[in-house]
Amino acid sequence: MDKDEARRRLRAARVGRFATVTPTGTPHLVPVVFTVVEDTLYTAVDGKPKTTTALQRLANVEATGHASLLVDEYTEDWSTLWWVRVDGDAQVLALDDDKVQGAIQALTRKYPQYVSQPPTGPVISLHMTRWKWWEAASP
Amino acid sequence: MDKDEARRRLRAARVGRFATVTPTGTPHLVPVVFTVVEDTLYTAVDGKPKTTTALQRLANVEATGHASLLVDEYTEDWSTLWWVRVDGDAQVLALDDDKVQGAIQALTRKYPQYVSQPPTGPVISLHMTRWKWWEAASP
Repeated sequence: MDKDEARRRLRAARVGRFATVTPTGTPHLVPVVFTVVEDTLYTAVDGKPKTTTALQRLANVEATGHASLLVDEYTEDWSTLWWVRVDGDAQVLALDDDKVQGAIQALTRKYPQYVSQPPTGPVISLHMTRWKWWEAASP
Repeated sequence: MDKDEARRRLRAARVGRFATVTPTGTPHLVPVVFTVVEDTLYTAVDGKPKTTTALQRLANVEATGHASLLVDEYTEDWSTLWWVRVDGDAQVLALDDDKVQGAIQALTRKYPQYVSQPPTGPVISLHMTRWKWWEAASP
């Protein structure tokens, strides 16, 4: 896998696992849907039922400014395993940020599920400055 | 979902995403295979090719003593989404720790892939003291 292929697999992935760090230094982890626009990844708080609106992931991004997202596909044939991970500075975008509407449009293009119920936000942006990938077998 | 069901789904999952925190406070994330023995989760460094043997996940667990593991299943029908997350104290087990052999045996029972090539370790243990789960639709 080279960086172009890593980028292709990241963009094609339907789900990612989004990691942040709590203000007390422990890891936090949640599956998210996301989209990539140039070198920035966006994920939105959406209408999927939540136990609370004060989401830990938002507090963590605001407190630490860092996030990481991993995509991978598990199969029982371990010779075909791979993953791609991106890391970088993250922020919770203000609702009037110009980037929010573009992010929501891009999310809605990728996920038809959002057409009838667009995400209301907040939107988290992750500036992907560090890329790492792995695959079990080289081509 | 109740705790029994969360526990059942965790045990049944074939892959988990394992989050730790680096000594400098940034999140780190990798897919792992794992097994559960009572209230402890085990994952091993195995023969899948690595770019380095000095794995970041080991350094992070040794530095911070914390880890988190998430299992989920993504489907395009968002009304069936769910996840289960466990958090707690983690450690890298010494190779002569009594728990290592039991962990490797349990991993090999769960994953036939390990029969021909058992993991050599190190083994990370995660004492699952905090459980959290979510599902889109209640039954």
